[in-house]
Amino acid sequence: MLPLREAIAAHYGRRYGVSLVPEQIIVTMGTSPGLFLTLSSLLNPGDQVILSNPGYSCYPNFIRYIDAQPVFVPVDAEDGFALHTKDLRQSIGPRTQAILINSPSNPTGHVLPAGTLQEIAQLGPYVISDEIYHGLVYGEREHSILEFTDRAFVLNGFSKLYAMTGWRLGYIIAPPEFIRPMQKTQQNLFICASSISQWAGLAALTEQHAEIPHMIATYDKRRKFMVKGLRALGFGVAVEPTGAFYVLADARGLGCTNSYHLAFDILERAGVAIGPGIDFGSNAEGFLRFSYANSIENIEQGFARVESYLRACQRLP
Amino acid sequence: MLPLREAIAAHYGRRYGVSLVPEQIIVTMGTSPGLFLTLSSLLNPGDQVILSNPGYSCYPNFIRYIDAQPVFVPVDAEDGFALHTKDLRQSIGPRTQAILINSPSNPTGHVLPAGTLQEIAQLGPYVISDEIYHGLVYGEREHSILEFTDRAFVLNGFSKLYAMTGWRLGYIIAPPEFIRPMQKTQQNLFICASSISQWAGLAALTEQHAEIPHMIATYDKRRKFMVKGLRALGFGVAVEPTGAFYVLADARGLGCTNSYHLAFDILERAGVAIGPGIDFGSNAEGFLRFSYANSIENIEQGFARVESYLRACQRLP
Repeated sequence: MLPLREAIAAHYGRRYGVSLVPEQIIVTMGTSPGLFLTLSSLLNPGDQVILSNPGYSCYPNFIRYIDAQPVFVPVDAEDGFALHTKDLRQSIGPRTQAILINSPSNPTGHVLPAGTLQEIAQLGPYVISDEIYHGLVYGEREHSILEFTDRAFVLNGFSKLYAMTGWRLGYIIAPPEFIRPMQKTQQNLFICASSISQWAGLAALTEQHAEIPHMIATYDKRRKFMVKGLRALGFGVAVEPTGAFYVLADARGLGCTNSYHLAFDILERAGVAIGPGIDFGSNAEGFLRFSYANSIENIEQGFARVESYLRACQRLP
Repeated sequence: MLPLREAIAAHYGRRYGVSLVPEQIIVTMGTSPGLFLTLSSLLNPGDQVILSNPGYSCYPNFIRYIDAQPVFVPVDAEDGFALHTKDLRQSIGPRTQAILINSPSNPTGHVLPAGTLQEIAQLGPYVISDEIYHGLVYGEREHSILEFTDRAFVLNGFSKLYAMTGWRLGYIIAPPEFIRPMQKTQQNLFICASSISQWAGLAALTEQHAEIPHMIATYDKRRKFMVKGLRALGFGVAVEPTGAFYVLADARGLGCTNSYHLAFDILERAGVAIGPGIDFGSNAEGFLRFSYANSIENIEQGFARVESYLRACQRLP
């Protein structure tokens, strides 16, 4: 819908000071189909996409699905999982077609500073910037890649900042020459995004919502509560995450060598759902991802159960 | 959602007497993503899928998207675009993985009789049956491929019979061994179907709707009105279509040799949107697809405009 695309353009104008036209925007059935369309239009078999390890679990699967190759750059807990431009630069080769970034990041909660984004924009390859957690930041403001380059594909949606999970509504902002091929692919394979959801998205962008700053303040309280609780239990959180709603906590000090096994064991025996670090990349083995998209009361009860579990396993004194 | 999958299983039980379990069903963001998941799970590069010419425009693009090959079987206006088993059989080769059928058909409105479905079910390859127009029939009842074989993938949705266009809700019924691979692909690339739409679909299937038989009766009136009007204008309709809401009319008697050009010319000069036959396959060149998913009044006005257009072009006496 044109009014929704106009509202998206206005939103990026207001928030990031970038000038967009609706013709650069494709509304999709969520950010995931948006990434699919982006990679489909951008990559040939054998092309490479550079991305962080750990990162969102599905990214490598999208890339491999179209016979392209993910190239991983490690990010480390010690500096809050910061992505370093020099590591990206060293990974660029003749088949590098894009760098895929996600700030604030799932699973690390890391927010890329403006300086790093500016450097990434100048590296050469297209930048695919998954901005789905934009707005959910608890320190310095997040920046859009579009503040620094037009050679970028932005993916965003409504499920996080507007808590519209389940509506399946997202969008792509792309260089104009990629729009028509992506529209054709969308029309053939997916038809379009739900019209009901598009009207809802328009309301989300154009009406005032006192709930949003309130929600962000609530997340921030939970974030602090969770970091404190995790440290008290013996998990390592070297640097507090400042975005999204995740803490990727180091469980190696508690004897975790197989995060997949540990996460399932906690799920089954303690009834607490936690993401195994290994799901997000080899560099997060020994880590567990905790989400604070839940009430303080539930997080508190979750901690109590995990504590009992760890005690029963003799992982705590 | 499990309750929606249960309702879909019950619907197929009631309407076609087939016994399904929810575990055979995947809810999708429409029938199109359902076809994408089906072909993705079923085909390797180089595999072949047999389908009719003419047929739904996007089918060949889905098949080619995953580097498989469409193999076309012609269907002809003279016998109402009937699909013949012997033509299908002759097209089967070592790389044939599936036969893709669509009854009632877009664009022809043809409804495959039970006998033909039974024969197709016995040919050997998997049958992919796009049943999205099921229920919209104006003569003999339609049949599901599942009445005749379990080696089938059924695609269906809510946009036609429940007039839920824009909600983007469909489903796949598949052999159990294909469910998990398709779920994984859906979870990675698409996440899931809209939860709002899923609740709406559940209401569509489980609540009584006097509107539906009324809508079907209304379509039937429009169908007769349109066939009569097209014939009066000089279009050829050899056999009345008995399903969906389309008439694929022969415009060759009116001098149409380039249906793409003619359809755009009518759109621009007469303000009437018609599908060019060539969009649906080479065997429909010289034909135009008219939709009666519109009021009698609008169809009447459309005819008046097309008549003026044809007169101005000296295609009518």
